[in-house]
Amino acid sequence: MKIVDKMQEEGLDTFLILNPHNIAYLAGFKPSSSSVLLIKEEPVIFTSKMDLEDANLNSKVGTEEFKSLDEIKKLLEGRVGIEGSMKMETFERLKKDSASDFKITGIVEELRQIKTNSELKNIIKALRIAEKSLKQVEFNKKSENDVAAEIEYNMRLNGSNKAAFDTIVASGTRSSLPHADPTFKAIEMPVVIDWGAEYSNYCSDTTRTIIETEKQEEIFDIVFEAQKSAVKVIKPWVKASYIDKVARNVIEEYGYGDAFIHSTGHGVGLEVHEAPSLSKRETIKLQKGMVITIEPGIYLENEFGVRIENMIHITNKGNVLNRIKTKISM
Amino acid sequence: MKIVDKMQEEGLDTFLILNPHNIAYLAGFKPSSSSVLLIKEEPVIFTSKMDLEDANLNSKVGTEEFKSLDEIKKLLEGRVGIEGSMKMETFERLKKDSASDFKITGIVEELRQIKTNSELKNIIKALRIAEKSLKQVEFNKKSENDVAAEIEYNMRLNGSNKAAFDTIVASGTRSSLPHADPTFKAIEMPVVIDWGAEYSNYCSDTTRTIIETEKQEEIFDIVFEAQKSAVKVIKPWVKASYIDKVARNVIEEYGYGDAFIHSTGHGVGLEVHEAPSLSKRETIKLQKGMVITIEPGIYLENEFGVRIENMIHITNKGNVLNRIKTKISM
Repeated sequence: MKIVDKMQEEGLDTFLILNPHNIAYLAGFKPSSSSVLLIKEEPVIFTSKMDLEDANLNSKVGTEEFKSLDEIKKLLEGRVGIEGSMKMETFERLKKDSASDFKITGIVEELRQIKTNSELKNIIKALRIAEKSLKQVEFNKKSENDVAAEIEYNMRLNGSNKAAFDTIVASGTRSSLPHADPTFKAIEMPVVIDWGAEYSNYCSDTTRTIIETEKQEEIFDIVFEAQKSAVKVIKPWVKASYIDKVARNVIEEYGYGDAFIHSTGHGVGLEVHEAPSLSKRETIKLQKGMVITIEPGIYLENEFGVRIENMIHITNKGNVLNRIKTKISM
Repeated sequence: MKIVDKMQEEGLDTFLILNPHNIAYLAGFKPSSSSVLLIKEEPVIFTSKMDLEDANLNSKVGTEEFKSLDEIKKLLEGRVGIEGSMKMETFERLKKDSASDFKITGIVEELRQIKTNSELKNIIKALRIAEKSLKQVEFNKKSENDVAAEIEYNMRLNGSNKAAFDTIVASGTRSSLPHADPTFKAIEMPVVIDWGAEYSNYCSDTTRTIIETEKQEEIFDIVFEAQKSAVKVIKPWVKASYIDKVARNVIEEYGYGDAFIHSTGHGVGLEVHEAPSLSKRETIKLQKGMVITIEPGIYLENEFGVRIENMIHITNKGNVLNRIKTKISM
């Protein structure tokens, strides 16, 4: 297990893992209730009675019943690694009357950035389900909400166990809100659709914008150029922040810099947003095996917005995983 | 604003609120990205550029652009309240080079336990949507996954903006797993369906079990008796742990104590699980205005499981909000 090597590098004797995504990554079983993956010599999952039958069926590591945090505390030895995602209230209970030396570590999140072949397969499967599910939608005379409902329904029937995140269908002036909830109003143009499926705990994340007018096409073409320019410079050991800069430069050149109001992308895997972030402040360099999104957008308040988001697997270059066309129509 | 009185009681000069549910509760706007609600004299929401247009439209309090945590740190004064749900990694960045005195406080979560009339209306609306959506399902020859997909699709069309949580449809032996994911296998008996809608950010949470054999009916009747007995003793100022005890006693009397492998219920509101917990260890007493679930269950490993979950509004007694029948059939 790689994780044990990483623990040694960081001088950790015990690792207390609570984040369900991290547990799923290391143990192949994603708990639905209070659970702890404890790694000393042998890893053990402590899970509530409620999840125990499921854990026994699916976990790659040994399982025991989770009784209380106090019972877990008795098992901690030496320097104890904890996750940055641990809640303050949990840490308060953990450190109370404890002699342990706690250290926040991101070693699981770091390992998770580089996808194995089987992880990549799940991500691609999630993406194919999502793409197929959009193609099956009939847009005619529907509301934003109808379209979102239909995409999510199709994804289920096509083999996804859930949407990877709340589906965005934002049309007309609402398309200028990057994270708009779908409304019950009839679809107008343009339509921004940002959707993803989850398959075997892995996520896809893609955006398409359907356009109509010349102005919309003009903006679309700028965003598309930013998209292509960013993908072109992706390769191992390039700074993630540089990719953001390349996409942003294209949009700035056309005078829309202020209208690109979010970062250029992010890692995708067990979570729809995970490291690295493709933003100005990110210090990480890209590596072979990462899966990231590239999602430049231009948002014109009270007018409309356009976003194009693809998923990229980093090999010796940026390998676009999407097969759905960038310019789609109703 | 009640929150300011609570802050004074706890000796807080500043309150730094990051939890999106807490922000939604206090400001009427639920952010989709990094946001901070800062309360000193006047409350202000700092939200990312991406959410700013939406915040300006919907927030009840003033809005500003969120630039960085460092900018926020400059605004902290005196004793600073933070939430127990804050992540350790956020706190590390917050306390670095900071002279502030931080104190974890649960005052928003405490206020959230008692629902206002308008909150109650949203919860009931979510419940009615969920109930109607189950009634519309055709079970004939479907898989667990088909039924889950159809419930969620119906909820959307009936006015919910999303499922309140991952819909559970667990049939045959899988019904013995309280949190089973729906599979692609054809529905067998019994079927446990645990589903809820979200409406205006408020959740519903209900479970029905459809039974067939005499053994299943025998277990159903015990769970139903536990359900009714628990509801009967609900009233203000009774301990939440007592309600758990009453439900558990009924099931224990019939010899199935070991098969009731979770707590009896929980609060519902902006989150599907919130305070109080109806469990052995809960120290909270029930109060007028709380909305809770009562969900006893019996899970017979490798055989089947039965759970019945209703939503209860606490007035002078336990007022069951559900209108869907407890015994439903396919």
